[in-house]
Amino acid sequence: MLQILEELIWGICLGNLGAKMLLTTLYIIGITAEGMTGALAAGRHNMDWFGVIFIACVTAIGGGSIRDVLFGHYPLTWVAHPEYLAIICIAAILTTKIPYFVERFERTFLVLDALGLAVFSVIGARVGLELHPSGAMAVAGAVITGVFGGILRDIFCARIPLVFQKELYASISLLTGSLYVILEFVSQKDYWILSENFIIMVALFVGFVARLIAIRYHLGLPTFKYTPKS
Amino acid sequence: MLQILEELIWGICLGNLGAKMLLTTLYIIGITAEGMTGALAAGRHNMDWFGVIFIACVTAIGGGSIRDVLFGHYPLTWVAHPEYLAIICIAAILTTKIPYFVERFERTFLVLDALGLAVFSVIGARVGLELHPSGAMAVAGAVITGVFGGILRDIFCARIPLVFQKELYASISLLTGSLYVILEFVSQKDYWILSENFIIMVALFVGFVARLIAIRYHLGLPTFKYTPKS
Amino acid sequence: MLQILEELIWGICLGNLGAKMLLTTLYIIGITAEGMTGALAAGRHNMDWFGVIFIACVTAIGGGSIRDVLFGHYPLTWVAHPEYLAIICIAAILTTKIPYFVERFERTFLVLDALGLAVFSVIGARVGLELHPSGAMAVAGAVITGVFGGILRDIFCARIPLVFQKELYASISLLTGSLYVILEFVSQKDYWILSENFIIMVALFVGFVARLIAIRYHLGLPTFKYTPKS
Repeated sequence: MLQILEELIWGICLGNLGAKMLLTTLYIIGITAEGMTGALAAGRHNMDWFGVIFIACVTAIGGGSIRDVLFGHYPLTWVAHPEYLAIICIAAILTTKIPYFVERFERTFLVLDALGLAVFSVIGARVGLELHPSGAMAVAGAVITGVFGGILRDIFCARIPLVFQKELYASISLLTGSLYVILEFVSQKDYWILSENFIIMVALFVGFVARLIAIRYHLGLPTFKYTPKS
Repeated sequence: MLQILEELIWGICLGNLGAKMLLTTLYIIGITAEGMTGALAAGRHNMDWFGVIFIACVTAIGGGSIRDVLFGHYPLTWVAHPEYLAIICIAAILTTKIPYFVERFERTFLVLDALGLAVFSVIGARVGLELHPSGAMAVAGAVITGVFGGILRDIFCARIPLVFQKELYASISLLTGSLYVILEFVSQKDYWILSENFIIMVALFVGFVARLIAIRYHLGLPTFKYTPKS
Repeated sequence: MLQILEELIWGICLGNLGAKMLLTTLYIIGITAEGMTGALAAGRHNMDWFGVIFIACVTAIGGGSIRDVLFGHYPLTWVAHPEYLAIICIAAILTTKIPYFVERFERTFLVLDALGLAVFSVIGARVGLELHPSGAMAVAGAVITGVFGGILRDIFCARIPLVFQKELYASISLLTGSLYVILEFVSQKDYWILSENFIIMVALFVGFVARLIAIRYHLGLPTFKYTPKS
């Protein structure tokens, strides 16, 4: 019964398109959007074209690179697929030509960024799951992939990373990664078999919607303010 | 004769507890203390819980991670033992609840930090010793493991690393690592065989005491001040 | 005919000295010069000797280390050759003794830095060429090796990397790396066989001269200034 339901949802959403192909498509959309926001950040610091391209690349693929380096997961995505680097470079240079046009679509970029966050988290969870049977590294991989691009962007612009102070962001990665792991574990039991495709779709969807809700209602984690007495 | 003396000292200190078990115990104490001081640093910059946990993790396990990545020593400690991550997260969140209680024990934390420095240095030296017969990488490994956590903490808080300007710190790592290597080399000669346990204990003890002396007497390296004339 | 011409140029330039030996020699000159400029940067921030040595090492070998870590190319150069670390440390400490003497030779250092940039780029291109048949990683490897040392130096001094805002620098790496790759590809065709030595020499020479021209005429990339309207 559930199998049929799943097939149905799946069929409606995607037809014959596989979830991994969807993941790759959304990944490319994600790195393009991240690259463009990275380029805008570089422009705010009056960088030259190399700075713009560097910050764009770091924002878009820095998270995945840090994950792969920490996990010893070689080759890195952009080493195996240099075409991703080319896409980011083009997106970055394009942004320098039409910054205010990009700015006008700020909302669209928030949505694309939310999509990117969900996609990066799912990809990170998949890479991390192989490393430790507990699934802890899947969650760590999701968070690292999701947030480290933005952290590096801010470090290379010499400021405290925004992600340490704004609405739920890393938490969404954690949620997405955890959900992916739980569904994977559940589906390994005999009584409830979920296809990999279905799990990816659910994790993506929940992460994406959760991020949109966090933006809409300004949901954030508690802040820790500490001023030394001495 | 020396063997007997060694056995004696060993027996008094530890009974049947092995030095490697001691190393692991002290390592856990070390990362907990480092995690708590990292959390305080995050609080000084008004970060949210994710920032607090991130800075705590980076401070506690950043040095070892950089060492392992540079040395190609996979898997990283926290990838193989996610429970260490959990300990640091708990210590970090606990710190946000009782910051002024932690602050009152500032001296205790200085001592724990000194202990952590010695432990990290010995562990780093052990990892590095396999890489190059000269022992140079053991010393490099000791320094990287000992100081890089603090360096990363400060970089992610967007300030110049404290360790470049305060009392002897990296030098203690260098001393501890060098001592470990010298004792290892000495014990490979036939005329003076030291057990691995004994070597670890001596290096730990000397590093720990040297750091306490450096704090007590404000011992520091010479500073290099340079103002361009042109 | 061309073979003979090549042999001739080669013989004039180097006699029996091989290009790889030349590359190693220039590499050592390059890391020494980079280490000294790194030490001056540390002095501008009143760092102690450890800070000076750390910034010197990061400036000199940081680019190659990042490249090797991203490419999974182990062991790192300085792990296999700790003597390079020793050279940089000596150069750094020496600089703290005679900073104004070093400053007086600013022009010499600009030339040595240009040489270093060309050498690092060629070495990076050679490492990257094995990773992807398209040669894209050779170009990426050239740029990463050439500029990341300076980027890390500035990050550890908590300021926006200079290389994002000054005259052509990363572009020279890109040019050098691209030229190396093109010559390699050309020489794989049957009708025009170039020796590896010749290719290295040409790429080195063009990169070096191009950098000097960029300094002389203040050639830079277009800058992207962006001020958010909202």
